[in-house]
Amino acid sequence: MRKAVVLLSGGLDSTTTLYYAIKKGYACHALMFDYGQRHRRELRSAVAVAKRAKVPYRILRISLPWKGSSLLDKKMKVPSRRKLAGVPSTYVPARNTIFLSFALSYAEAIGARAIFIGANAIDYSGYPDCRPAFIKAFQKVAEKGTKKGGIRIVAPLIKLTKEQIIKLGRKLGAPIDITWSCYAGGSEPCGTCDSCLLRKKGFDRADR
Amino acid sequence: MRKAVVLLSGGLDSTTTLYYAIKKGYACHALMFDYGQRHRRELRSAVAVAKRAKVPYRILRISLPWKGSSLLDKKMKVPSRRKLAGVPSTYVPARNTIFLSFALSYAEAIGARAIFIGANAIDYSGYPDCRPAFIKAFQKVAEKGTKKGGIRIVAPLIKLTKEQIIKLGRKLGAPIDITWSCYAGGSEPCGTCDSCLLRKKGFDRADR
Repeated sequence: MRKAVVLLSGGLDSTTTLYYAIKKGYACHALMFDYGQRHRRELRSAVAVAKRAKVPYRILRISLPWKGSSLLDKKMKVPSRRKLAGVPSTYVPARNTIFLSFALSYAEAIGARAIFIGANAIDYSGYPDCRPAFIKAFQKVAEKGTKKGGIRIVAPLIKLTKEQIIKLGRKLGAPIDITWSCYAGGSEPCGTCDSCLLRKKGFDRADR
Repeated sequence: MRKAVVLLSGGLDSTTTLYYAIKKGYACHALMFDYGQRHRRELRSAVAVAKRAKVPYRILRISLPWKGSSLLDKKMKVPSRRKLAGVPSTYVPARNTIFLSFALSYAEAIGARAIFIGANAIDYSGYPDCRPAFIKAFQKVAEKGTKKGGIRIVAPLIKLTKEQIIKLGRKLGAPIDITWSCYAGGSEPCGTCDSCLLRKKGFDRADR
């Protein structure tokens, strides 16, 4: 069975992506990161999702001591009800590059043929490392920076709206109810951060 | 003063690279990794070099639990007096991709304009992530995966022989005597691993 590494944050997008990869017939290995994120709560969801999907998982602990993001720096505030323009303060410098680089190492070590990432460039938060051009650039790194190449970077949601992602997740039987999107770091979703708003908008439209 | 992040392992190449970056007028920030390497001893050299150069440094601890390398897996043996052909077992899957991705995050967070890496494609150990094509591919990731782009990946030694690196290091006043190259994990250099052999060959030629 072909193996894949799947980046799993515990949110809606990565959970749907995991179920997509399983549906495609991959033996999935979920990879999660404890990186000092304010919303560390998401890891509980990620673990619950991996268990539900019956896939093995690893949580890597990394530190980004230079912070540079309101998701990492408790002295900054997570913006609420923000206009979606420009790159917001929740952007974590080079986060997806770091996550994909560990996934690449993992994939190469276990002989996986694909890495799945739930990046999305439509109903998203304006992050540069969620765009198709970034994924394409990293694909080249995967080809040039490994022994044999041949590891594909797959971002199946990249051009879907949140509404479409929710519908796809439901179709795939993904446990959307146990996913976590909120950035604010509380024990209940705040309902006002970008991530909560995008999620809400998606559900409103999917349930119309 | 323009800032740069410099990957510093404590070896000959990265030490020379640091002194090269300083000479070029950059305010350097050294970045080191404790990644479970057998030759953790190199970090002592890296710290000593950073102190000698009077540059700030950070050591990040990361784990690569999937190993996949004789530098990480104590059950494997570090090859000695090996023919330099193919990719050796000391290759760590996607190591430079991981190191560069953290450097990219650091550089973006502090507003650095360049990342220096001592990768070398001539007298090297056959690692895919030390070749010009890899550096070029990562440059594209740096452009596409950050807020504003504009962070250059600089590999000044990429086409130099070990002999030339040693001569350059001496010219720049790099403290070559306190660097560490051996892979074997002992408290003295083993003299027979690839890294020791390449170092010795370089000195033999430089001192002819």
